Amino acid sequence: MPSPLINSLVEALRILPGVGPKSAQRMAYYVLERNRKGGDKLAYALQQAIEKVGNCAKCRDLTEAEVCGICSSPRRLQHELCVVENPTDVTVIEQSGIFKGVYFVLMGHLSPIDGIGPQDLGLDILKARLVEGEITEVILATNPTVEGEATAHYIQQMAKDAGVAVSRLAQGIPMGGELEYIDSGTLSQAFAGRKTV
Amino acid sequence: MPSPLINSLVEALRILPGVGPKSAQRMAYYVLERNRKGGDKLAYALQQAIEKVGNCAKCRDLTEAEVCGICSSPRRLQHELCVVENPTDVTVIEQSGIFKGVYFVLMGHLSPIDGIGPQDLGLDILKARLVEGEITEVILATNPTVEGEATAHYIQQMAKDAGVAVSRLAQGIPMGGELEYIDSGTLSQAFAGRKTV
Ligand SMILES: [Zn+2]
Ligand SMILES: [Zn+2]
Repeated sequence: MPSPLINSLVEALRILPGVGPKSAQRMAYYVLERNRKGGDKLAYALQQAIEKVGNCAKCRDLTEAEVCGICSSPRRLQHELCVVENPTDVTVIEQSGIFKGVYFVLMGHLSPIDGIGPQDLGLDILKARLVEGEITEVILATNPTVEGEATAHYIQQMAKDAGVAVSRLAQGIPMGGELEYIDSGTLSQAFAGRKTV
Repeated sequence: MPSPLINSLVEALRILPGVGPKSAQRMAYYVLERNRKGGDKLAYALQQAIEKVGNCAKCRDLTEAEVCGICSSPRRLQHELCVVENPTDVTVIEQSGIFKGVYFVLMGHLSPIDGIGPQDLGLDILKARLVEGEITEVILATNPTVEGEATAHYIQQMAKDAGVAVSRLAQGIPMGGELEYIDSGTLSQAFAGRKTV
């Protein structure tokens, strides 16, 4: 009923997670009635990020650089590698301040049903890094879900084959929980109480 | 800690109503990890709407046309004018299907404290239309809040001065409520039970 351009904007906003038809409409009107400057900035920020943010060549985390800030930092322990499912997990662990090593971001987990195999998670890259010899410890921080556990198990085997020590975050993470919703305190416990597997 | 471009995107998303730091981050990662095409579409829809959507010359509602679809429709009763605060209110009333006339959208309400006077609400345009003679009835549908009532009162006087009948939506709208959150049934009642003021 309103203008086609407003309808298109409402539709487009609905791609965002957690945004239903009502809130999409509220957002569209808010931008057009009260904050066109903010809307312009948002459009620009989206385009810039989409165009320029890719994956780190070493850890696969999202970055606009060839190699991300953590992988290229001399202040990080480059021999200690924490494997996580998503970039959000890196942010959560960084906020806790408990970990001084580097990451490997799978961008998902093994899921044969969805056709997601080792290649899709960059496990060939990870394997090459493990064989290389710089990494001495792998900390598995995939989510404690069925898929996360299966993925952890796969990587555990890979690390053992390469002769690299492996541990798994254990204490404090509730079963079935997702890493990104866990507080720093619980996370610190999980790091401190990690077990060799 | 992540890339500056991701940070800018997270910041930009926070202008949207109801989006806090956590959901902004989730949205940014979602777009970059899983839906870059949707993100591109959103950026384009924002730019198009911001560039091309303006206000209807007759009713001030948001539209990309000179005069909006409702104001230019031969199937609408052009002599019956419903005054609302926001474009969202037009959408809500249209969804109820109870009203066949046209609208005047104030884009706010009188608020001396915020320096919002009659001019800012386009009341000079409304006055000119009332004096013109085409409109025979004004239905006041501003929100039943203190400011909404004061605005209604002001327009009521204006309509009376121009010799135009005025009514105010009454039954069914809870005090202090906002029009955009009201269901169609309640709204139908409010239209049917409107009183001449
Ligand atoms: Zn990296
Ligand atoms: Zn119009």
